[in-house]
Amino acid sequence: MDYARIAPMMGRLWSPLAAVTASWQGRDNAQMCLSIGGASIVPDVPRVVVHLYKTNLTHEMVVGSKAFALCFLRQDQQELVHRLGFVSGRGGDKVSGLRHHKGVTGSPVLEDCWGYLDCAVIDALDGGDMTCFLAEVLDGRMVGAGEPLSWHQMRQTMPRAWHEEWDRKITGEIAVSRKTMRRAAARRA
Amino acid sequence: MDYARIAPMMGRLWSPLAAVTASWQGRDNAQMCLSIGGASIVPDVPRVVVHLYKTNLTHEMVVGSKAFALCFLRQDQQELVHRLGFVSGRGGDKVSGLRHHKGVTGSPVLEDCWGYLDCAVIDALDGGDMTCFLAEVLDGRMVGAGEPLSWHQMRQTMPRAWHEEWDRKITGEIAVSRKTMRRAAARRA
Repeated sequence: MDYARIAPMMGRLWSPLAAVTASWQGRDNAQMCLSIGGASIVPDVPRVVVHLYKTNLTHEMVVGSKAFALCFLRQDQQELVHRLGFVSGRGGDKVSGLRHHKGVTGSPVLEDCWGYLDCAVIDALDGGDMTCFLAEVLDGRMVGAGEPLSWHQMRQTMPRAWHEEWDRKITGEIAVSRKTMRRAAARRA
Repeated sequence: MDYARIAPMMGRLWSPLAAVTASWQGRDNAQMCLSIGGASIVPDVPRVVVHLYKTNLTHEMVVGSKAFALCFLRQDQQELVHRLGFVSGRGGDKVSGLRHHKGVTGSPVLEDCWGYLDCAVIDALDGGDMTCFLAEVLDGRMVGAGEPLSWHQMRQTMPRAWHEEWDRKITGEIAVSRKTMRRAAARRA
């Protein structure tokens, strides 16, 4: 199937951009994520699902701590997306230079954001290359106003150098994911 | 936690509205859904996650057939949302009166829509009151143009009588979901 046939649908299934943060064994980290969905119709038991790629440092920290915070960003925070989403926390500390406090789950909550959700993992589904975490929202608060930043919007306005940097990063990740998903499919067959 | 503190975030985690259709044991059905997320970064292996409430007829048909189609709707199709999303298929056939064909998975594809994805279930996570289905997109096509219909938009423009009808329906479902989620949490504790 030609992906162009379904691209307008697939592109509308991503969430606003959020920094996903976690704290585990004395270390903090944050990555960017856009696959976050609502998972409860009950206002007093709010839940989300979040997909994290297994190759990310944050993934292993969320598996360990069974918690994370989602910090959605304002439209003027593209610089922060570049800082948190284009490089791995394995290369150096991405969180200590940012104003933050520990949320109720122990995950770092970035104070300069559009709004945050502090979440405890309930269960997880192995998606092959990624894990789909089902989590309960234990705390959260709006910080900014207006609309949150989306990746669609950021791609239209970010510098050309970031496009090139991003394309190199995602091309490598797609190759790893494709291989992992095919291997998992072969095991199921 | 007061839900109003996080409502602007939670409200932006829903997808566009889609009719979720399934065919099982000679019967077709469709329900409305707005919890659909992208679940793959690999264009040639497109995947989605879809949450279906266990009390819905479509849920048991997707469990049986291991397949479903997502038919996203145009903004002028509010009448169809009312027809498919406000009553259960247990009360009568909701699909045979609509122009459709069987997709590659055997699920009915509604021909009058914004675009469709025909999906095969890979795995599932039990969310207590709902199941989170991870599925591969095997086929799909854009049918319309412009933007798809969202529940946010529909709530702002639909007739008052539909609001009352919807509020009665969702109040009952929230009560069932709350009880189911609390029971599952007690089992985990």
